Amino acid sequence: MSKQGAKGLREVLRLPPGEGVDLASYDTRATPCAPNGKDAALADSARMGKRLGRLQERLWAAGTAGDRRRVLLVLQGMDTSGKGGTVKHVVGQFNPSGCRIKAFEAPTEEEREHDFLYRVRRALPEPGEIGIFDRSHYEDVLIARVRHLAVPAEIGSRYGRINDFERSLAEDGVTLVKCFLHISYDEQGRRLLRRLDRPGKRWKFNPGDIDERALWPAYQEAYEAALEHCAAPHAPWYLIPADRKWYRNWAVSRLLLEHLKALDPRYPKGDFDVAECRERLLKRT
Amino acid sequence: MSKQGAKGLREVLRLPPGEGVDLASYDTRATPCAPNGKDAALADSARMGKRLGRLQERLWAAGTAGDRRRVLLVLQGMDTSGKGGTVKHVVGQFNPSGCRIKAFEAPTEEEREHDFLYRVRRALPEPGEIGIFDRSHYEDVLIARVRHLAVPAEIGSRYGRINDFERSLAEDGVTLVKCFLHISYDEQGRRLLRRLDRPGKRWKFNPGDIDERALWPAYQEAYEAALEHCAAPHAPWYLIPADRKWYRNWAVSRLLLEHLKALDPRYPKGDFDVAECRERLLKRT
Repeated sequence: MSKQGAKGLREVLRLPPGEGVDLASYDTRATPCAPNGKDAALADSARMGKRLGRLQERLWAAGTAGDRRRVLLVLQGMDTSGKGGTVKHVVGQFNPSGCRIKAFEAPTEEEREHDFLYRVRRALPEPGEIGIFDRSHYEDVLIARVRHLAVPAEIGSRYGRINDFERSLAEDGVTLVKCFLHISYDEQGRRLLRRLDRPGKRWKFNPGDIDERALWPAYQEAYEAALEHCAAPHAPWYLIPADRKWYRNWAVSRLLLEHLKALDPRYPKGDFDVAECRERLLKRT
Repeated sequence: MSKQGAKGLREVLRLPPGEGVDLASYDTRATPCAPNGKDAALADSARMGKRLGRLQERLWAAGTAGDRRRVLLVLQGMDTSGKGGTVKHVVGQFNPSGCRIKAFEAPTEEEREHDFLYRVRRALPEPGEIGIFDRSHYEDVLIARVRHLAVPAEIGSRYGRINDFERSLAEDGVTLVKCFLHISYDEQGRRLLRRLDRPGKRWKFNPGDIDERALWPAYQEAYEAALEHCAAPHAPWYLIPADRKWYRNWAVSRLLLEHLKALDPRYPKGDFDVAECRERLLKRT
C-alpha cells in the first residue's frame, strides 16, 4: 500500500462535487493507492474479501434487528468497461444471500409507462443488504441523452430528480457507492475484438456495440454532465481507472471496505433471556 | 474419491422414488463418496468451485440465445441443518449475477390470499439462471402439517399439486435438485447452544426454535411423508448427511456439478457475421 493509501481511497477517487469533469484528463491505466503491482493487489483483494464478508454479515445481522442501513453499489461505464466482471469478482466475495443484484436493460414497454425511477425503486436493497446496480437510473441521462430518447427539457429535469431521489435514499439509510469505470477508447477496441475472436466470449458481443462505439465522444460528454450534476456529499461519484482489471477489482473492493468499516455495523444483542433459553434447551437435550 | 464415486453421487444419495423413507435409518454423520477426510474434501470443493463457475457461465450464455434450461436447487432441513451455510459456501462459488436466491419465510397476508404455489412461481429462475430456494413450497406440507395450518384434506391434496407443479417445471427446462439436509437431534442441540453462547451467532437464535425442536418427531414424520410422496425421476430428493458441514458443502457442490455436466450447456455461436464485424471494428480503431 502506498502512502496515499493512508488517506483512504474514497478521498483519492472521489470526484469533487460541484466541479466540472474532464474525463480525458484522467489516466485510464492509473493505479492510485494500489499495492505494489498486480500480484500484490490480487493477494490484497483476497484478504479484503474475507473482511468484506465479515462486515456484510454484521450489516445483515443488524438489519434483522431493525437497523435500516444498507449499501447500494452503482456501476456505470461504457460497454466492456467491466461492470459484469466487477459483479463477478468483487460482489462474488460476499454471501450471495445478502446481495440484491439488478442489471438494468432497455426498459420494457410496461416500465416505459412509468416515471424513469419507477423500476429503480423496485430494485433497491432492503435494510441489511448490499444492493448492486449493473447500469442504473443514470442510463436515463446517458443513452437517453445521446440517442435522443427524451426531449432535452426532460433530460435536463432528470438530473435534479436523481439528486432528490438519492438524497431520500441517503436519508433512509442507504450508503451510495457510485462507481464510474473509466476505460479508454483503445482499450474498448481491444476488448471488443477479443470478444469477437474468442469463441468463449463471442456470446457477449453484439453488433450494435460497434454503433454505440461510434458515439464515444457524445457518451463521454453525457457522462461528464451526469458526473457533474449528480454528485453530492451523500452520493459522490468515484472515478475508477479501469483499463487494468486487477486494479478495478481492487479499487471497488477497497471502496466497499472503507464504506462498510465506516458504517461499523454491530451484531444485535438479542432481546431474549439467554440464561433461560439455555436452561430450556438443556432440559430437552 | 472412493470407488463409489465412479457411480455418481446422484445415484448414491437419491432416495428411491416410490419407496417408504425411514429417516432414522440414515446416518447423519456419514460421508458417502467423499474424498479421504475433511482437508481433501475442502480442496476438492475449491476445485469444483472453478468448474461450477465455468459451467454456470455456459448455462447463462446459452440462455441468452434461447436455451430455456436452468437449475433449481431446493434446500430443506430442520432448523440449523445448514441451509444458509450451503448458500454461503456452495452458491457463493457461482457468479452471483446468474443466481436467483429466495429465502421463504412465513407467508405474508397477501401471499396467504393465494394458492400456496403462487409465491413460489414468482421466485423461479429464468432460463440460464441457477435458482436457489432456502425453504420452499415443501414448508406447506411440513410446518403446515405439524402446526395444523391447514386441514388434513388440504395438506393431502398438496402432495399431488406439488408433483404436478414440479413436472411442469421439468418440462419447461428446469433441472430440480432437491436436497434434504439431514442432521441428528443431538447435533441440532449442539448448534442451538452454540448460537446462544457465541455473541457473533446469537442474532441467528430465536427462542421459538426451542418450541419447534420439541416437535422433532412430528417434523421427521412430515419429512418422511414429503420425501415419499414427492419424489419422481425428474424431481428426486437427495438425502445429504449434514452433521459434518464440510461434507454437506462438498456433496451439494458435487450434485450440482454432476447435474450441470449432464446438461452440458454450450456457448452460442452468435448469429452475426464475425468477419464483417471485425472489419467494421478495425476501421474505427
